[in-house]
Amino acid sequence: MFKKIAIIGVGLIGGSIGLAAKKKKLAKQITGVCRHESSLEKALKLRAIDRVTLDVNEAVKDADLIILATPVGTFKELVNKISKSAKTGAILIDVGSTKEEVIRTIEKVLPKRVSFVGVHPMAGSEKSGVGFAKPDLFEHSTCVICKTKSTHKNSLNKVAKFWKALGAEVVVISPEEHDMEVAQISHLPHAVATALVGSVDAKSLRLASSGFRDTTRIAGGEPVVWADIFLSNKKEILKSIDRFEKVLNSIRGLVKKQDYKGLIKEFGKNKKIRDAITKK
Amino acid sequence: MFKKIAIIGVGLIGGSIGLAAKKKKLAKQITGVCRHESSLEKALKLRAIDRVTLDVNEAVKDADLIILATPVGTFKELVNKISKSAKTGAILIDVGSTKEEVIRTIEKVLPKRVSFVGVHPMAGSEKSGVGFAKPDLFEHSTCVICKTKSTHKNSLNKVAKFWKALGAEVVVISPEEHDMEVAQISHLPHAVATALVGSVDAKSLRLASSGFRDTTRIAGGEPVVWADIFLSNKKEILKSIDRFEKVLNSIRGLVKKQDYKGLIKEFGKNKKIRDAITKK
Repeated sequence: MFKKIAIIGVGLIGGSIGLAAKKKKLAKQITGVCRHESSLEKALKLRAIDRVTLDVNEAVKDADLIILATPVGTFKELVNKISKSAKTGAILIDVGSTKEEVIRTIEKVLPKRVSFVGVHPMAGSEKSGVGFAKPDLFEHSTCVICKTKSTHKNSLNKVAKFWKALGAEVVVISPEEHDMEVAQISHLPHAVATALVGSVDAKSLRLASSGFRDTTRIAGGEPVVWADIFLSNKKEILKSIDRFEKVLNSIRGLVKKQDYKGLIKEFGKNKKIRDAITKK
Repeated sequence: MFKKIAIIGVGLIGGSIGLAAKKKKLAKQITGVCRHESSLEKALKLRAIDRVTLDVNEAVKDADLIILATPVGTFKELVNKISKSAKTGAILIDVGSTKEEVIRTIEKVLPKRVSFVGVHPMAGSEKSGVGFAKPDLFEHSTCVICKTKSTHKNSLNKVAKFWKALGAEVVVISPEEHDMEVAQISHLPHAVATALVGSVDAKSLRLASSGFRDTTRIAGGEPVVWADIFLSNKKEILKSIDRFEKVLNSIRGLVKKQDYKGLIKEFGKNKKIRDAITKK
């Protein structure tokens, strides 16, 4: 599908893309770039990439597909380098968790000869690092591809084909839709999970069972990654927190009033929605 | 360990106790009581119990250990029946998720000849019904046994031995401590999970991935069971929601101020706490 792929940031996502692309034979050569030499060595050993470099320009210069898989906060600096070194006709994708601000920033600086498509694979883990990468991470997952008025149709199709080949179901939406929906089903849950952990007495944790563990699992995510996400999707995250608080507040009201039927109705309505997700 | 055990309410917990007690040979005979004949037939088929009856008095009259495993809201009526039929020296335990109010109510009406111990096995699932029961549900779980000034020491020891034999680690605390701690690590997470589901647009659910699924799993719990719990642990649940809201509010404040370092610090502090639970 591609002759040469460059993956910048060989962590859980970057590493899994490499493993999956090699397994499915989607590229002749995959080059990995990372700030830490130790991660690159690990990635080579795991065969997530074919060759390594610490130099972005070197990795990017003859790549047909460039994949930006570092934390969102590092994009600006990296895209400046890519703008200088990428060849004409190269496709650049990012796999960041927020899209509106990211896409706006990248589209502004990237030269016309490179085609950019914003992507968000809805797969991952609270774990980080290439050590947790796996070739089937994207199987049966959803991959969001963002379309803007600048998006090149052929590039979008090629990127969609790539993600389908990695095992994902592709959804094409606008960056604005993406950020609103993901604020609700990913960023808000993270805010809530971390707040849950932060509001419990240390002593009470001795009774924590699978319910607490599952509800708070994502609070184990990388703080830097999540701080990046929260600032780059600020508006939608604040809206989601406000909405959540209203619902929680109404539950508190039902408890205060000892409204048994009201609680059953509220829990029942949400159970129905939750049960439908499991069945999917 | 016991000649005859009566399990009132053969659902996920009651059924699992039956299966585990039979596997570990802790009783000669286990009788199951249920309101629905279909559940009893299923329980018999699964061999969670040896014999069935729809009549509480009949099941209870020669039992050495009586286990109350129905929703908390049904306890009062059932304890009235048990008070009349249980034999001298019988031990009654409940497995309800809230303890202070439950224990106060039961200790008030139960005659001296029956010895009561309040228990809360911290194991389960959002699934309900004997169909999901399994003999190893309590292996490596924590079982809280509540001690009050009326608790009979010998009975408490016997009950602790029973739960250890079922595979649980036993923690003996007061009903007040139990309700406070469980409000934080079980009831608050339920309020938060159900509010999360209730605050998300239907359309956004198409992007829901493992993070959302895990964070909201317990919102699939039985509405009646949870409404019972919320009203019977009202005071502590309201306190927990207030504390949670303060933490969430401070996260919202950090996002509003775009305080990157503050967010990293807050997420990092909670990640550390969460990571320690996984390692346990």
